Amino acid sequence: MRYELYYWPSIQGRGEFIRLALEEAGAEYVDVARLSGRGRGVNALQHFLESHAVELPPFAPPFLKAGELVIGQTANILAYLGPRLGLVPKAEAGRLWAHQLQLTVTDFLVEIHDTHHPIAGSLYYRQQKTEARRRAKHFTRNRLPKFLEYFETVIDRNASGRGFMVGRSLTYVDLSMFQLIAGLRYAFPETMAKLEGEIPGLVALHDEVAARPNIAVYLASKRRIPFNQYGIFRHYPELEKP
Amino acid sequence: MRYELYYWPSIQGRGEFIRLALEEAGAEYVDVARLSGRGRGVNALQHFLESHAVELPPFAPPFLKAGELVIGQTANILAYLGPRLGLVPKAEAGRLWAHQLQLTVTDFLVEIHDTHHPIAGSLYYRQQKTEARRRAKHFTRNRLPKFLEYFETVIDRNASGRGFMVGRSLTYVDLSMFQLIAGLRYAFPETMAKLEGEIPGLVALHDEVAARPNIAVYLASKRRIPFNQYGIFRHYPELEKP
Repeated sequence: MRYELYYWPSIQGRGEFIRLALEEAGAEYVDVARLSGRGRGVNALQHFLESHAVELPPFAPPFLKAGELVIGQTANILAYLGPRLGLVPKAEAGRLWAHQLQLTVTDFLVEIHDTHHPIAGSLYYRQQKTEARRRAKHFTRNRLPKFLEYFETVIDRNASGRGFMVGRSLTYVDLSMFQLIAGLRYAFPETMAKLEGEIPGLVALHDEVAARPNIAVYLASKRRIPFNQYGIFRHYPELEKP
Repeated sequence: MRYELYYWPSIQGRGEFIRLALEEAGAEYVDVARLSGRGRGVNALQHFLESHAVELPPFAPPFLKAGELVIGQTANILAYLGPRLGLVPKAEAGRLWAHQLQLTVTDFLVEIHDTHHPIAGSLYYRQQKTEARRRAKHFTRNRLPKFLEYFETVIDRNASGRGFMVGRSLTYVDLSMFQLIAGLRYAFPETMAKLEGEIPGLVALHDEVAARPNIAVYLASKRRIPFNQYGIFRHYPELEKP
């Protein structure tokens, strides 16, 4: 199966969680909006959002074309890919638990994004900077530690003792933890420097994921879009000032 | 199977989407935190959030105990219950589509909630009233119509032509649409009064769900907690003023 990923071509964003899973598994895929030519580019993505001929329209990217299926919502795409790419346990209990954790990642991502866009996604950051500072203060003091300490607890309590989030081997949830830690280090370096001593399991997991052969090749390639000021994770130093 | 639902006892909140599915299906369930006695009440809920003995701790309610499983995240619970309660198509494509829509409901709910809490959930509304007015203005003008018109499009394009969101019969997504319309009417009555002419399919679906025998009995019972100023949907008239 050659998968087609549809996501904005200039940011990591939510699409990155899918890219990491496809890359780790060595899956055959095309990152449609980043290519040019017939049926490629951002126009191909817009088609699914705007054409009246699309019977099951996604609300927003990312979405994945897998044969006849068009699957939207990041966590839903990962739940679909997980068993096919060997990135989730086979038993239902393990799949439900992995998906539950991924949906908690989804919740966290909204809060991370809204630190720089607390009023409206349609406004520029500079138009909501005052509110952003206020929201970011509560985020870095309360919400960021709460989410990361929760995920650390999940690793701690994983009976397998192998340092993964779910069961005895790598899942898409571990890849998402890598991306969270990397992104939070970019966006909130001072906050993370203070906090990382309390989340040793997550830090070790980040390093283990980064060193996996397929992920290491991907991270060093041009396919990995650098962090920038257009995605979910943005570095505005004033948002870490008390 | 007797299901145990764990959710805050005084609000509809995210738990209501699960209650509606259980009620429609006539499933046997207990709403644990609303009862008293051994293993009941809010303490029983807190146990899962706080006890070190819980191996797979949920981040937040709602969660569902189904035999040995403890399943968290509203949309994940519905994805689990759907096939068991006959509230989702049997084929994988239909289940993925229903879940994708439910995750879009999840996204919408965060934005609805954040109209009254744009800065922090840990602060009172009165402490973020200025920011709430600004966020709510963008929400009622842009985001609310965008989400509802999207869901209307989904009904329109459903090839079965039966007025449901997914396929030819009722799914948990339809129950969630009922709850969204009811909640938005409570929270933003003026906005909804102006908009409802443009979403006839959703309005008809709301009425059809409300009239289903099990749902009608539920809505008239004490099990249905009234809308109030503590949940996701809150009525602050100033948030509709331009």
